Amino acid sequence: MTKQQITKTDKDFDIMGNYRRVRVGIVGASGYGGVQLVRLLIDHPDVEVVYMGGDSTTGKKFADIYPHLAHAINLTVEKVDPEVIAERCEVVFLSVPNGLACQMAPILLAKGCKVLDLSADYRFTNLSTYSAWYGKERSDNETASKAVYGLPELYRERIAEAQLVGCPGCYPTASLLALSPLLKQGLIVPETAIIDAKSGTSGGGREAKVNMLLAEADNSIAAYAVAKHRHTPEIEQICSELAGHEVTVQFTPHLVPMVRGILSTVYANLRDPGLVRDDLITIYRAFYRNSPWIKICDADTYPQTKWACGSNLCYIGIEVDTRTGRIIVMSVIDNLIKGQAGQAVQCMNLMMGWDETLGLPKLGFYP
Amino acid sequence: MTKQQITKTDKDFDIMGNYRRVRVGIVGASGYGGVQLVRLLIDHPDVEVVYMGGDSTTGKKFADIYPHLAHAINLTVEKVDPEVIAERCEVVFLSVPNGLACQMAPILLAKGCKVLDLSADYRFTNLSTYSAWYGKERSDNETASKAVYGLPELYRERIAEAQLVGCPGCYPTASLLALSPLLKQGLIVPETAIIDAKSGTSGGGREAKVNMLLAEADNSIAAYAVAKHRHTPEIEQICSELAGHEVTVQFTPHLVPMVRGILSTVYANLRDPGLVRDDLITIYRAFYRNSPWIKICDADTYPQTKWACGSNLCYIGIEVDTRTGRIIVMSVIDNLIKGQAGQAVQCMNLMMGWDETLGLPKLGFYP
Amino acid sequence: MTKQQITKTDKDFDIMGNYRRVRVGIVGASGYGGVQLVRLLIDHPDVEVVYMGGDSTTGKKFADIYPHLAHAINLTVEKVDPEVIAERCEVVFLSVPNGLACQMAPILLAKGCKVLDLSADYRFTNLSTYSAWYGKERSDNETASKAVYGLPELYRERIAEAQLVGCPGCYPTASLLALSPLLKQGLIVPETAIIDAKSGTSGGGREAKVNMLLAEADNSIAAYAVAKHRHTPEIEQICSELAGHEVTVQFTPHLVPMVRGILSTVYANLRDPGLVRDDLITIYRAFYRNSPWIKICDADTYPQTKWACGSNLCYIGIEVDTRTGRIIVMSVIDNLIKGQAGQAVQCMNLMMGWDETLGLPKLGFYP
Amino acid sequence: MTKQQITKTDKDFDIMGNYRRVRVGIVGASGYGGVQLVRLLIDHPDVEVVYMGGDSTTGKKFADIYPHLAHAINLTVEKVDPEVIAERCEVVFLSVPNGLACQMAPILLAKGCKVLDLSADYRFTNLSTYSAWYGKERSDNETASKAVYGLPELYRERIAEAQLVGCPGCYPTASLLALSPLLKQGLIVPETAIIDAKSGTSGGGREAKVNMLLAEADNSIAAYAVAKHRHTPEIEQICSELAGHEVTVQFTPHLVPMVRGILSTVYANLRDPGLVRDDLITIYRAFYRNSPWIKICDADTYPQTKWACGSNLCYIGIEVDTRTGRIIVMSVIDNLIKGQAGQAVQCMNLMMGWDETLGLPKLGFYP
Repeated sequence: MTKQQITKTDKDFDIMGNYRRVRVGIVGASGYGGVQLVRLLIDHPDVEVVYMGGDSTTGKKFADIYPHLAHAINLTVEKVDPEVIAERCEVVFLSVPNGLACQMAPILLAKGCKVLDLSADYRFTNLSTYSAWYGKERSDNETASKAVYGLPELYRERIAEAQLVGCPGCYPTASLLALSPLLKQGLIVPETAIIDAKSGTSGGGREAKVNMLLAEADNSIAAYAVAKHRHTPEIEQICSELAGHEVTVQFTPHLVPMVRGILSTVYANLRDPGLVRDDLITIYRAFYRNSPWIKICDADTYPQTKWACGSNLCYIGIEVDTRTGRIIVMSVIDNLIKGQAGQAVQCMNLMMGWDETLGLPKLGFYP
Repeated sequence: MTKQQITKTDKDFDIMGNYRRVRVGIVGASGYGGVQLVRLLIDHPDVEVVYMGGDSTTGKKFADIYPHLAHAINLTVEKVDPEVIAERCEVVFLSVPNGLACQMAPILLAKGCKVLDLSADYRFTNLSTYSAWYGKERSDNETASKAVYGLPELYRERIAEAQLVGCPGCYPTASLLALSPLLKQGLIVPETAIIDAKSGTSGGGREAKVNMLLAEADNSIAAYAVAKHRHTPEIEQICSELAGHEVTVQFTPHLVPMVRGILSTVYANLRDPGLVRDDLITIYRAFYRNSPWIKICDADTYPQTKWACGSNLCYIGIEVDTRTGRIIVMSVIDNLIKGQAGQAVQCMNLMMGWDETLGLPKLGFYP
Repeated sequence: MTKQQITKTDKDFDIMGNYRRVRVGIVGASGYGGVQLVRLLIDHPDVEVVYMGGDSTTGKKFADIYPHLAHAINLTVEKVDPEVIAERCEVVFLSVPNGLACQMAPILLAKGCKVLDLSADYRFTNLSTYSAWYGKERSDNETASKAVYGLPELYRERIAEAQLVGCPGCYPTASLLALSPLLKQGLIVPETAIIDAKSGTSGGGREAKVNMLLAEADNSIAAYAVAKHRHTPEIEQICSELAGHEVTVQFTPHLVPMVRGILSTVYANLRDPGLVRDDLITIYRAFYRNSPWIKICDADTYPQTKWACGSNLCYIGIEVDTRTGRIIVMSVIDNLIKGQAGQAVQCMNLMMGWDETLGLPKLGFYP
Repeated sequence: MTKQQITKTDKDFDIMGNYRRVRVGIVGASGYGGVQLVRLLIDHPDVEVVYMGGDSTTGKKFADIYPHLAHAINLTVEKVDPEVIAERCEVVFLSVPNGLACQMAPILLAKGCKVLDLSADYRFTNLSTYSAWYGKERSDNETASKAVYGLPELYRERIAEAQLVGCPGCYPTASLLALSPLLKQGLIVPETAIIDAKSGTSGGGREAKVNMLLAEADNSIAAYAVAKHRHTPEIEQICSELAGHEVTVQFTPHLVPMVRGILSTVYANLRDPGLVRDDLITIYRAFYRNSPWIKICDADTYPQTKWACGSNLCYIGIEVDTRTGRIIVMSVIDNLIKGQAGQAVQCMNLMMGWDETLGLPKLGFYP
């Protein structure tokens, strides 16, 4: 019912006049973010996955790792060689551990590729912040300075012109979408911001860890990395930019017994006690009026993560507690889609000059 | 990456030359099968949902029932009047309780609509079987005799020519896809067939029932309706047709602590003890060679329901126990898609002369 | 290994010299709190359940409601008549909807029974607060003024002397155990206190509700009753008493896809920025040194709800964020045990002069 | 309410007249079976855990592995040395990988310990069956021939006199309790027996494996080890003994998205088509009349695993399908209690001359 409108330019057709899809490559396709990215790209009308690279899985057919996708993709995971990738691909997604993307990106960029990094390597304006929180020294300041933070709702235009995008973490995506209108418009006291975030376990990746076993994580909830999670400085960097001054936030992640989804419950003191909930709903709707993936809930409606899961959507619910003078904002996303692979595709769409909704799922997987 | 090939005929265009989608209606859109159907039809390139009917929800906006779909569909649930429906729709899906479809279908058919019934009303060749198991008298023999059982993998051609399709139950879909090659080719002793089926709780519908509460159903598994589930005669009817004689099967459904998915573990004694697993894999692949939604697993690979969930696929794994002379077949589907709404859309595709994969999801929602 | 030390007084023996257990009754035994209470009392060495009352279940055998407990208890649910109950029981637990306990308690008290009310009726010192939040007028000020709030860790001595105990709600239990040392000792700025609480779905009771279906609630998390949950004034009443002045808190409950357990993540600004985490751990351990059910975690250890589930324990983890000057306290309980039935038994133990650990489970149900 | 009656003999008291508990040791306490065993033994009135041995955890405090049990046990995991264990313990539980128990047991037995092995090492009368299925050569025929299979409902007397007990696997426990009355009394055609078993993931142990991650195993069900699971020969050995001739069974295990619990759905053809369900319920109740842990459900009641979880109980439901001539038996247990640690304690109780229910939980953890 909802067909995408695509305007092709001449170069999208080969000399025989056949439509030619953009060739994309994925480094690190076998993790949860990677396999989600593969699925989204398979369903994308204007790209073709022509390369998959990996380390521990080199030489394996992708279908041997994910047998249920054998009918949909027939690629073998190759050894990672940026030179080879650059020859074969126009767009490259790096879904790799922190500290690896910054070794590949400069080569890919030099060869003219557009690069979307899903790791933390290109999220920071200030590399010393990166080094302090991630424990890795970096010297690629020049490359890093060209990277754009891939949150389209805030940086749509810059992403459209970027060659290198550092895609946000899952928690920062949910948290910043909840906080941005408030900070941008100076509606809250920034230092009162508390983000209590809850995530499904797929955010922890596909690595075998005891605490992620169903027998451990099911029917239980706990906080982790309290006051020290690496997504904190990432959130603060953007909050500071929005507020126009240094902002420190309280961020607490929790592990929830579910596969997908993040809910960020955000608290902050309103500057103006006269603002009521309906005002804020109006403000949020205006702020996101050009953002097709953001849906602001009606009054008295609070989103559940299930609504967003399976889609690239972010639902935001808003409440004001007149007793305490606080606003409570609840944002939900699918951590693997809007929080990771879907957002990267959204960024690619912008970088390619396409509609930012192109090829992305709009309807949550419900029930 | 995988675009559908659609050949339009002239009548698909209005007098202004604009492409015109087929207008479809849904009666009973607010249940789990209904909302899944709505989502599939929203994503379908060649149809437009123009009508929603309901009983308890009459007058409500669909978006009030499912707020997270407000951006995707803007219809109000209307009182059910077959005359009105027939005027507005070319294709009508009936997702209603048993015993209601048979009151509406004759009117809709008389007005020229194509009708897909997701209830049990038109699944039985012999209405006395229906009456015995469903406890409702029926007199619409003539209409019933025209209905085709909507399992495309067995009745593709008849569905293509049908005006009325009785869509199979979720358990029969999984069970019959597992058993059909064996029965059709006389490979097993039919009376030894045992179907041990496991379903997620969404199969029980969206009605509030104590035994379906998370607090009751989570972290627990149990059998129910043992030796008396209503899907038994439906399975037996098709098995008998395939075998060429009356077949009785053992069918036991179980409630599993998960939302979606059915796994049918089917046991039967092989007639020929010389048949080995690889023979049977070959036989299944040949049987389903023209069925794009059926995937036969490689040897030693047993499907999990998660592979199929979110797609219209059925994965089938095969094992032979040479110690006992039995074949064990495991089939998995998404109970709300291939087991219900997706299969109905697949049938509609056939009835409309379209590719049977048109508009349906091919990639399971993983992880 | 851990035997309870029980000192019996003469009246515990009948005239034949046989040990006589205390006779207890339960009104409302068929809900989740009720059945948990029944199980705890069955395992309690010094009581005997001699009466069960109910409304919708009158006349049913308890074993018909919970067939798996048929071997352990053989009682029939009786019509509720306080006069009859008082004749048969020395201790009565009221596990009934709000507004009913206040009709029964005065009669039971007048007849000399000890009464433990698990509803909200006797939690409030100020009945106008109750009426404002629960929408029910009350005139039993005299009875209410005698009730003691049943949180033993704060009111051990008063409970021991009480005839009527208003047992706390599940959220207030977890929240107050986390906050009490801070408020009592003036360590935080009270108005900065934010309680982000997460609960399993059994807290919603055994009533059939669509939003509590496994198909709805599984694999999803959402906030509810934001800024208006009825447990807010209950938390504030005790916080105010501890702080010595009126305190307003921010309280947000969330529904988590698990059966049991509550995690309260509590944030507050420390008055003294020089306090470090180890100081606070020491302070908490000292505060709860006589509270056998409270366990303060070591540094860097954050509790998960699973640790507490199946026991009457509350585990508390503590973190201080030196960047923000906030303390983050995480407390976990089993909502049906320490948050409801277990705490009521703990109160009964105190009222009877027994060890407060008597008969209660000490080891979480893990994994 | 239900106090155990214990008769002590003189040797249970030390020379000072104090009651002396039996000293037990556990080798392999850190796995799921081990930690369950620890919890049961802590709650057991007549034993004291004085030793814990382990390999990878040597030198660690048990409380560092399971911080939530720190208040209940204060032991350090020691290097495994059978000589030392024998000096310190009267009873030793071996909760170790297959192939290790047979190296320790002979030493422990020679020193006079009673030994309960929870691995597969002493389950087989015929060591060549063990070697064929477990791939390990064995030469300790003499020790093995003295071992008794630790299923008290079948071998109560032999266990009581044994010095070495080979505790059954979790699947065999559930399956044999369902099948025994039928085989013992010749009511079924043995070769028609099909066991379709469903287990929670804790049965897979606490090892970090990708397929056991919550993100993989949640919301999904699949069969595994079809026609080749190692519990097959164990089931067949006992079935053959009961039937009086060699019996081959079909056994298929499934992984269910829950932590604990096994449901075995067992199918078999009745020899006598005249037997009805009520006859069979009567037969089962008679068969288990002296087995306090077995509960036979009323007609039309099918057990769910949740009923048994948290207890040492096995609930059995029975149905007869008069259309097919088959009996369907459904048995549920807690795989870590009756299927493992609880059954071992039940065996110890018998070996010590105690009541077999001593110290074991009788009330399922519900909801």
